This record gives sequence, structure tokens and C-alpha cells, in this order.
Amino acid sequence: MTHESFAPVTAPDEAAAAAARERHLTLTKPPGSLGRLEELGVWLAACQGEVPPRALEDVRVVVFAGDHGVVASGVSAYPAEVSGQMFANIVAGGAAVNAIARAQGASVVAADISLDREVDEAEAPYRVRRGCGAIDREDAMTEAEVARALAVGRRLADEAVDSGAQLLIAGDMGIGNTTPAAAIIGAMVGAEPVAVVGRGTGVDDEGWKRKTAAIRDAMFRARGLRGEPMELLRRIASPDLAAMAAFLAQAAVRRTPALLDGVVVTAAALAAEELAPGARAWWAAGHRSAEPAHALALAQLGLEPLLDYGMRLGEGSGAVAALPMLQSATAVLRDMATFDDAGVSGRAD
Amino acid sequence: MTHESFAPVTAPDEAAAAAARERHLTLTKPPGSLGRLEELGVWLAACQGEVPPRALEDVRVVVFAGDHGVVASGVSAYPAEVSGQMFANIVAGGAAVNAIARAQGASVVAADISLDREVDEAEAPYRVRRGCGAIDREDAMTEAEVARALAVGRRLADEAVDSGAQLLIAGDMGIGNTTPAAAIIGAMVGAEPVAVVGRGTGVDDEGWKRKTAAIRDAMFRARGLRGEPMELLRRIASPDLAAMAAFLAQAAVRRTPALLDGVVVTAAALAAEELAPGARAWWAAGHRSAEPAHALALAQLGLEPLLDYGMRLGEGSGAVAALPMLQSATAVLRDMATFDDAGVSGRAD
Repeated sequence: MTHESFAPVTAPDEAAAAAARERHLTLTKPPGSLGRLEELGVWLAACQGEVPPRALEDVRVVVFAGDHGVVASGVSAYPAEVSGQMFANIVAGGAAVNAIARAQGASVVAADISLDREVDEAEAPYRVRRGCGAIDREDAMTEAEVARALAVGRRLADEAVDSGAQLLIAGDMGIGNTTPAAAIIGAMVGAEPVAVVGRGTGVDDEGWKRKTAAIRDAMFRARGLRGEPMELLRRIASPDLAAMAAFLAQAAVRRTPALLDGVVVTAAALAAEELAPGARAWWAAGHRSAEPAHALALAQLGLEPLLDYGMRLGEGSGAVAALPMLQSATAVLRDMATFDDAGVSGRAD
Repeated sequence: MTHESFAPVTAPDEAAAAAARERHLTLTKPPGSLGRLEELGVWLAACQGEVPPRALEDVRVVVFAGDHGVVASGVSAYPAEVSGQMFANIVAGGAAVNAIARAQGASVVAADISLDREVDEAEAPYRVRRGCGAIDREDAMTEAEVARALAVGRRLADEAVDSGAQLLIAGDMGIGNTTPAAAIIGAMVGAEPVAVVGRGTGVDDEGWKRKTAAIRDAMFRARGLRGEPMELLRRIASPDLAAMAAFLAQAAVRRTPALLDGVVVTAAALAAEELAPGARAWWAAGHRSAEPAHALALAQLGLEPLLDYGMRLGEGSGAVAALPMLQSATAVLRDMATFDDAGVSGRAD
């Protein structure tokens, strides 16, 4: 399988980071006293190559929607038709991600990558295919479909960046999608199925057993594929996860920061880091979800989440909830007075 | 010493909390999937007595400023004159709390409770006295001054609530103020001086030893006073901390929620809970600061912080940074579609 090639990822601007650290020392506060908010401001300055960093006025959430053949194995608390209903709900602005994004100043678009429904092609410009294979017993998609999914994800990132997006957030929506996410994470970090399986939207104990078996079977189908992200995505992920991986990789190629959401997005991020090495320097982790695989994936990426609220909804909801932390971080560097401006004395030592 | 009496604290509205929990179950998301954001929304609905809760459009930060005689013992990295300079900086809008509050939609006022400077009385309507006693060797203030400080704090809360404030935040500003805060917390939770002493704005090792000795001496001066908050405040706190305690107690009396900041505010909150039992039900903890005494105080109050960023600035900065979590929590209850509205199917089970 040929490797879908991404342009090289360049690092955030280290000179801007140094200048932002220097600026922090001139502001009217004890050095380091804003803790993590200071680090976030330095990171955003480095991503923008500008000190102080600009306010994040154009933040885009793209929700990647897809259905999952593995739902037939009884891995979810919800029936598959809910995916299409929730897609319509997001488009109408009624989902959690919409409500939180409105409160925090982000815009939301939903992309039907692979929902299991009939659509007019003109109405679904990001469509890769209808649904996907049941990964516990068959491949999620063909090689051509993987290539198409990556191209679609890349296009979504390019369109957002070209039209002015300053920060990207990927969200996920699709009944059953924590099953491929857990399988991908298990395969990529080398964990056992029981260590990555979670309750998803809330399966009961019997459903949990079925889900664990499905993840085990999927991981078996992907044995020996560490280091081969394209083939891993093809066998045990799905078009929506593959598109999301390309979206996150391309954001980094385009020097645009992204805020990660929960377990599904972070599974895609693990693949994105292999597709475009160095991409993780452009990401921050919005939250730590209740899904056990999420913490494993964040640790592998070396990312410390901004919130730890036991959220497990997806859609990008945890990332948009964390967005105001980035806004506050830029405001500190932009709007605070310096010791000189304010006529405040420095430290006694 | 007579007890400055607060009106009884009534509990947040349990019927509204139940209705908010019920509403959460009707919204288009798996039950409980927004974790802590759901609990925050329920709490705000209970505080407001309204479901869905209103957006928090009028949030007031009151920064309690005071100087501390104990600074003469070398407990801080900064000279005492910085308190007055930083007060002017907050009034001018250049401090960290101003920058973050502007980003998050809160307003900030600074109240000179006991700065060590000459002021025209007409310009300092909340003034209790100039500076305060060095608590390692003398009382912070007189009984009459404690009474005045409590009256001032109560008045600040009443003025804010009467003019429409929906949520109150207390901030602190004053070189040396983590010393009385640590001593108060040590005395009220029964901890050793070394367990409560922190670096404050950043004292070096020698300063840390002097600070530990000052806290030890202050705590010795307050031995046997657990359960006597007025006398504890009088001996080892300060007018600004006493006013802050009254402000937080009166917020609860007035059924107005408050978001706590760092170690100084939380020390005041411990006293407030004794002055007005039940007040803590009206508070959420904005963040966990880097000061070791803070975690002890939060545990005593049974509050779990919203952020854990190693912040240690004071001014209310950690609380305003956490404010958008409350905004997102109300938005979810107010703006999300229900399963019925959106035509989304419920769970399979």
C-alpha cells in the first residue's frame, strides 16, 4: 500500500516562543505565577509566530460523522439510526457541541464522511462511502477508500485554513465509533483489549463484553501493523477516523494549531502523528475523557489535558469546553500592563 | 467577643436541582456524558432556582486589597510598596485579573480595605484601617476593626447583589497575604506550619524559613481558637481577609453563588463557613493553586477545583479563568435540543 504523503511538518516558531517567555517576565505578576496559562500563551505565540499572540476569533469545529459496521455486533447502547438523527441535530445547531461552541465563540460544521444513509452526492461533498466494514471480521474499507478519506480530511483542513481559521477542532459523531478508536489505540500503544475498552455512550455489562470481544478480534486482525498507519486505518478504523487523521495532520502541515477532543479524535491523532511526524507539536489536549484508552493515547502523544471532567460525549464538546483557556492565555500576553507601564516595582531579590 | 451575626444561610433550591437533572436526561446526549459540566449546570440551576439556568451576564470580581505588618519579618519576595502600585494597576485595568476578566466577561472592582498608604477617606469608601499588626507577634486588629471589616465585606456583597450581580468572585491583593492565609488554614484544619507554608509570590529558601517561622508564631498566638472565627481573624488574619470572609458569607445569605480563587480567598472561605454555616453550598472552587495550604482548605470545604494549572497569582485570576466552565454549563441546559425536539431516538436498552 503506498503511503499517502503529507508535506513535511515544520516546528512552531521557537523564536516567538522565546519572545513570549521574555514578555511574560515583563508583565505585572510574579514570574510563572499563571502556571499552565503562561505555557499555553507561549505555545500559541509559537504557533502564530507572533508576540503577543492574536485573539482566537476564528475557531472551527469540524464534526466527522460516520457509521460503523461493528454496531451489528451489539457494541453500543444506541441503535445505528441515531447517527443520522444526531447529524441532523448538529446541522440544526441543537447538539452539545453547538451549545458550548456558541457560548465560547467557535463555529461548527458537520461533515458526512460515511454515514449509513442514502444521500444525494451534491449534498454530501465530503462523503467517502456509505458506512464501513464490521472491523471485528472484515476490513473497514478498501485502499482507494482510505486514499479518498485522507484526501477529504486534508481538503477540510485546507478549506478552513484558507478561509481564515486560526484554530481547528475535530469532533466525532457516529454510533459505535469508540470501538474502532479503542482498537486503533490498543494496536498503536501496544495495550491489551481490556485496557482500552470503555462504556462509550453507556453500554451495559453484556454490551461491554461484546465490545471487548469485537475490539479483541479487530486488534487480532491488525496484529503486526505498528508503524503502518495507512493499513491500520484501512483494516480496523473507518473512513471518518481516517479523514480526521488527515485533517489533524494537514492542520500541522499548514502551521495551524488544533485542540484535541476525546478518545476518537485522539485515536485519529495517533495515526496523524505517524502520517505526518512532528504534527503533535501543533496540538493541545482539551480534556481527559472517561474512556480508558484516551489516557493511554494522550500519554503516547505526550499531551496533558486542560480539563478532567469525566466527559464522554464526543462531537468536539470537550475541546470547545477547553477553548476559553486558550483565549485567557492569549489575553494575558496581549492585555496585561508591564512593570514599566504600570510603575510597579520588581522583586526584592 | 460578640459574634457578628449573619442572617441564616438557606440551601440552594433542591427542587430546581431535581428539575435540572431531569432536563439533562431529555437533552440529545447520553445520560451523564458531559460529566462535571452537567453537575455545574445543576448547581447553578439550584442557586438561581430556575431551570434552565440563566446565562451569567453580570459577574463581579471584588479584589480585597490590604497590607500586612508581617512583611517586616521578610516573608515575601516583593517589598510592601508593591501593594499600592498593584492596586493602582488593577484600578487602571492592567493586572492579570483584568485581562482574564475582559476575555471572560466579568467586571472587576478593587477595594482598598487596609493598604498601608495615606488616603483621603472619601476616596476609600471600604477602608477599615491602614495596614495591620504583624501577626507573628501582635494582633492583626482590634475588635472594633474586625466588626468594621465584616460590615464592609457584607456591604460589598449587598451592593453587588442589589445592583444585579449573578455570581460573585473575591480576589486578594497585598504583599505578604499568603502568610495570614496559611496561618488561618493551619489553625482551622489543624495542620502543622510546614504543611501550610508555600512560596507565595516566590520567596527564596531563606525567605521560606522566615515565613515558616512567622506562620508558626502566628499559629501559636491563635492556639485553642478553633471554632472562634471572629477572634481568629482578629489575632492572625487581617482586615482584608476578614472583609472577604464576610463578603463570601453574605453572598450565601443573599442566595448568590460565588466562585472561589486561591489560597487567600479559600482561607477567608473557611472562616466564612463558620460565620455563616452552610455557606459553602453556594460556592464552587475555581482552581487548585500551587500553595500547599489551598488543597487542605478545599478538602475541608469539600470542594473539588475546576482547574489545576499551578496558578499562584491571586487577584481572583484563577476564578475568572474557570468562569467559562460555568457559562458552558448553563449553555448546555439552555440551548441544547431535546430528544423530542430533534427527533432523535433514545437508548437501545
